[in-house]
Amino acid sequence: MVSEAKLKEYYEVALKLVEKCGPLFMEGYSKPKADYVVKSDFYDLVTVYDKQIEDTLIQGLTSAFPESLIIGEEESATSERQAELTDAPTWIIDPIDGTTNFVHRIPHCCISVGLAIKKELVVGIIYNPPANELFSAWQGHGAYLNGQRISTSKKTTIRQAVVAYEISLIHAARVRDKNIKRIYKLGSNATCTRSFGSAALALCYVATAQCDVYHVEDLKPWDIAAGAVILREAGGTLCHTYGGKFDVMKPDLVCAATEELCKNAISLIEEANQITEYTFK
Amino acid sequence: MVSEAKLKEYYEVALKLVEKCGPLFMEGYSKPKADYVVKSDFYDLVTVYDKQIEDTLIQGLTSAFPESLIIGEEESATSERQAELTDAPTWIIDPIDGTTNFVHRIPHCCISVGLAIKKELVVGIIYNPPANELFSAWQGHGAYLNGQRISTSKKTTIRQAVVAYEISLIHAARVRDKNIKRIYKLGSNATCTRSFGSAALALCYVATAQCDVYHVEDLKPWDIAAGAVILREAGGTLCHTYGGKFDVMKPDLVCAATEELCKNAISLIEEANQITEYTFK
Repeated sequence: MVSEAKLKEYYEVALKLVEKCGPLFMEGYSKPKADYVVKSDFYDLVTVYDKQIEDTLIQGLTSAFPESLIIGEEESATSERQAELTDAPTWIIDPIDGTTNFVHRIPHCCISVGLAIKKELVVGIIYNPPANELFSAWQGHGAYLNGQRISTSKKTTIRQAVVAYEISLIHAARVRDKNIKRIYKLGSNATCTRSFGSAALALCYVATAQCDVYHVEDLKPWDIAAGAVILREAGGTLCHTYGGKFDVMKPDLVCAATEELCKNAISLIEEANQITEYTFK
Repeated sequence: MVSEAKLKEYYEVALKLVEKCGPLFMEGYSKPKADYVVKSDFYDLVTVYDKQIEDTLIQGLTSAFPESLIIGEEESATSERQAELTDAPTWIIDPIDGTTNFVHRIPHCCISVGLAIKKELVVGIIYNPPANELFSAWQGHGAYLNGQRISTSKKTTIRQAVVAYEISLIHAARVRDKNIKRIYKLGSNATCTRSFGSAALALCYVATAQCDVYHVEDLKPWDIAAGAVILREAGGTLCHTYGGKFDVMKPDLVCAATEELCKNAISLIEEANQITEYTFK
């Protein structure tokens, strides 16, 4: 592993660079979008800012750290090869997470930058400029929101828990039924369920104790990498959906404020998977 | 109906009074709540602020307008009679809407004050202090966010729409199945689904075009009264779940950016109601 001093340098450079992208993010966020009523138009507009922010981040990070590689949303979209994690320091970047929120000016979207070294996640920065929330963490040094230390709740049972879930996933026919069953099971048992529309920020919300459980599948490494570091450094538990080791390259996950709560959520997901038919009352 | 000048006075006094309650609201919102892990504790704490804010509002409004009556959450909880709307000017008050968010410091909770005269909703003020969002409207004069005019999107089809839905309602066994079917139908067809946890603010989010459709049932007059005025003054359509006239005293509703979109949502709800059995893929 790299030295503490080097790790700190990675963290501090990335933090400053992400903050520097705030005004560009806000420019795109604030643009009147009333004319963009067709979905493809929306995404053309988003792509412009996605690209500009990612370029700024990649240029800044690779010029400060020529030894580092990049896995990013835009970069992967234009590359022919499948992204693969090596032992080299690798920045895992999402220039705009929560794009639908970004387009609709819902102040719950962000820039997400994670760093993996020797396949281990060690730095995470998540910046939500419209809400002025800058989350950050580096391995072994805790997690922070705008410089203040954050930590997960101590909750242990789903009955006490606020569950975050991407209800929007039921829009996709391929994963609809799986998700509706899990929403049903988790939502019936939790204190309440929220769906804010950004995976990166959902992980941060568990880190700050605003939520207590988050479960999501079928996303990409850049949706999760930075948030995984922040969540863990805040004291949270993160694992694969069925309790195995979390893999950032296929980031199907359950995370929770505590290990006990995480296990509680996993057994509800397993119960949900068993449902094959349902008769509505 | 009262004169324009009188209506303006109601609006301006209520607006100032609601704003004045911001610091009290923020005091409760900001309090460390780590110790409040038991649900009843949470609600004890909320009740203290609920009560104080409601008292401030009631005192301010009834001393400025002795002719007016009150329907409020706290007030109704302690009263023996069922709240009833008469022809008198009646303030319909929720001192803290989105209490679970308030407790968890999720910046999506608010004070909501509506005014009905001769059973018609004519003034609405909704203030979300943590996010610094002050929504307001009075009949015939448009809707505003922090003084800036707002209006709904022009969207007409559910495919283009961001749907807001209180997924948490499935927590209650009595209304679980009804809601899970409707989430399934609306969520499968919409661009995306969000669940923020405040009915008052969901109406405002449709008013600002951040969302396009909202459907909710089984709530109380004070959850909806102010938001109904803001939504309509922003150009939105609001009706009973099945298309009839909206009744604030039994506020089961569908609202949308446009009339066409509202009809579109209603037919999906009707389709959802028809589902009796479901076989999961």
